[in-house]
Amino acid sequence: MSEALHGRRVAFLVAPEGTEQIELTQPWRAVQEAGGTPELVSVNPGTVQAFDHLDRADTFTVDTVVGAARVEDYDGLVLPGGVANPDILRTVPDAVRFVREFVATGRPVAAICHAPWTLIEADVVRGRRMTSFPSLQTDLRNAGADWTDEQVVVDQGLVTSRKPDDLPAFCAKLVEEIAEGAHAGQARSA
Amino acid sequence: MSEALHGRRVAFLVAPEGTEQIELTQPWRAVQEAGGTPELVSVNPGTVQAFDHLDRADTFTVDTVVGAARVEDYDGLVLPGGVANPDILRTVPDAVRFVREFVATGRPVAAICHAPWTLIEADVVRGRRMTSFPSLQTDLRNAGADWTDEQVVVDQGLVTSRKPDDLPAFCAKLVEEIAEGAHAGQARSA
Repeated sequence: MSEALHGRRVAFLVAPEGTEQIELTQPWRAVQEAGGTPELVSVNPGTVQAFDHLDRADTFTVDTVVGAARVEDYDGLVLPGGVANPDILRTVPDAVRFVREFVATGRPVAAICHAPWTLIEADVVRGRRMTSFPSLQTDLRNAGADWTDEQVVVDQGLVTSRKPDDLPAFCAKLVEEIAEGAHAGQARSA
Repeated sequence: MSEALHGRRVAFLVAPEGTEQIELTQPWRAVQEAGGTPELVSVNPGTVQAFDHLDRADTFTVDTVVGAARVEDYDGLVLPGGVANPDILRTVPDAVRFVREFVATGRPVAAICHAPWTLIEADVVRGRRMTSFPSLQTDLRNAGADWTDEQVVVDQGLVTSRKPDDLPAFCAKLVEEIAEGAHAGQARSA
């Protein structure tokens, strides 16, 4: 266990249902193992329903409702995937505002799999080098991103990966970026 | 039972899993009740797994594999939704090619809910007036569509609707458009 994220709080923002469970639990553990404090942020209080691909898996207790969450209380933001999760999240104005404000402060953001749809909705992908689950590459390119097919891409505080297989590389890079703190280049993209 | 679609074959193109069941079965019945012949086209032979929102529902037998399907054998194409369905379909080159060729011939296409993602991938939405499930409105606008929030939109042979509640209006319009035959304006958009 390292101390890279000692004293750092990291928001995990997910929709009430549809999150790919392993894309929540594995980065969560990586933040804890680096000495940081993960916090589950969602649309409503109560629990969220995670999925194992297209089947219901476990539920998780929400710590903070996104409408009441303040960007300045966190040092990093993780956006897990699951096809239905960002599809719901991007329709919630408080969630989109939170993501946009997060990027605007230059704080590190890590998004995996289908999660970059929420970044498209927040209009923060223009000119960013990034990856995603391959199905949304056209949506990302149309939104102005420089899309590439790599297991993990880091661009000025924005960490992106394609799928669950990429989780070890994704987790290592998100811990590294959050430990570094805010990135001026990230703030300029919002 | 009308005879508006007497002698007409209508392809229903879906992914191996994730189709919103009612968006398959209700238009299917509408085609049959108008005297037409629906045919299930998918990526692989065998069956497809439909969903009721995020839960598994029934399976349906595939009639034709899209890699072997010929556009000239059909008079209309229906694209049901379900968030995971077009997300899979748009990554299958044979499916994207079939949709693009269908539009290029001017033949009517009807897409509901999340299905327009496949139209984005086929690059046939530029300048088209259309609707969809609200979550993908930004992706459609970024791809060049003129997106609007209405229960059904008809633009030169392209019929689109937002969600299961819109099915009665969607079914009525898709039967009408397929009965009319190919539209020159549709062909020009591909």
